[in-house]
Amino acid sequence: MKILIIGGHGTIGKRVTQHLSRKHDLVIAGRTKGDILVDIANTTAIKEMFEKTGTVDAIVCIAGEAKWAPFNEMTEEDFYIGIKSKLMGQVNLVRIGSAYLSDGGSFTLTTGILADDPVDMTTSAAMVNGGIHSFVKAAALELANGHRINVVASGLVVDAVEKYRDYFPGHHPIPMDKVVNGYLRSIEGKGKGEIIRIYS
Amino acid sequence: MKILIIGGHGTIGKRVTQHLSRKHDLVIAGRTKGDILVDIANTTAIKEMFEKTGTVDAIVCIAGEAKWAPFNEMTEEDFYIGIKSKLMGQVNLVRIGSAYLSDGGSFTLTTGILADDPVDMTTSAAMVNGGIHSFVKAAALELANGHRINVVASGLVVDAVEKYRDYFPGHHPIPMDKVVNGYLRSIEGKGKGEIIRIYS
Repeated sequence: MKILIIGGHGTIGKRVTQHLSRKHDLVIAGRTKGDILVDIANTTAIKEMFEKTGTVDAIVCIAGEAKWAPFNEMTEEDFYIGIKSKLMGQVNLVRIGSAYLSDGGSFTLTTGILADDPVDMTTSAAMVNGGIHSFVKAAALELANGHRINVVASGLVVDAVEKYRDYFPGHHPIPMDKVVNGYLRSIEGKGKGEIIRIYS
Repeated sequence: MKILIIGGHGTIGKRVTQHLSRKHDLVIAGRTKGDILVDIANTTAIKEMFEKTGTVDAIVCIAGEAKWAPFNEMTEEDFYIGIKSKLMGQVNLVRIGSAYLSDGGSFTLTTGILADDPVDMTTSAAMVNGGIHSFVKAAALELANGHRINVVASGLVVDAVEKYRDYFPGHHPIPMDKVVNGYLRSIEGKGKGEIIRIYS
């Protein structure tokens, strides 16, 4: 398969990329690094990315940001950082990418455990993750041409423990190969509308 | 209690209002009807509403809209109708309303079954509902002054069957008194961070 991975050089992305590269042709996109530079908060940049890739067999997004801050310090604009990037960035990838996805191809989006089990300072991050979960279930009912869509939601992953441990008290780190399997399940499996939770 | 109900004249709102008015003092707000006119998509209007109400003991939102349309016809702007109204409208009610809620007071937001069990044409409506579910869980961890927050998610309600039956094939209508109880549970109970699902 020809697979587009947005965020293919990130913490999770590089592990997924490493695994998929064994048997697939990959196009890596990213905000600061990759074959194609793209910020998914920028809709024009998404369109330009797909003009470059042409038709692909799977579109994987392991990108998108949201602001972490105490709720009483979050402005309306702060919430829109996550809305424009991790929420609508991923929705726009599906909206626009549908025209570039081959018949029977798949979308795999990324959220995280915060959707179901938030921690301090994540009112925005939890919100956009939860929004994507419901979006995926709804979009799966409507996608044409045999397209599938799923989302991988993982807990605190082993490779991010050093950086995020203090934000996730008591969360047991998820091995990277387990997280990679979440993506394989979506890309190489047959499921659709699945929220692939990898929380333990 | 002095209770502010935004959307107090809507399909569900009027039933909730009717019940609560037996033992509480109500201020009804709404987009087209009420003691105070407010469109929750307008942040300035939310601020002006709270300047009028002053401190209240409970804030209930049974308002907010989102566009229903086939996914392949939904523009980015169409998604922002729901984001500005049902999603960020409710988030802004909590952000701004916290300063007007008495100690131990509660927020009660409203979503619906689409968050978990979407139907055709609801990619946006499902998304904003799911976003609010996760937001409520996250906000409940951080609200100060003993404030509580919950959300009531109901299925197709009896009073809306005539209008929406065709959109919800096989959904068994939820009696209005059951839905009203969801709001009572949040307002008069002690729970917080609860997604009060009334799906059957």
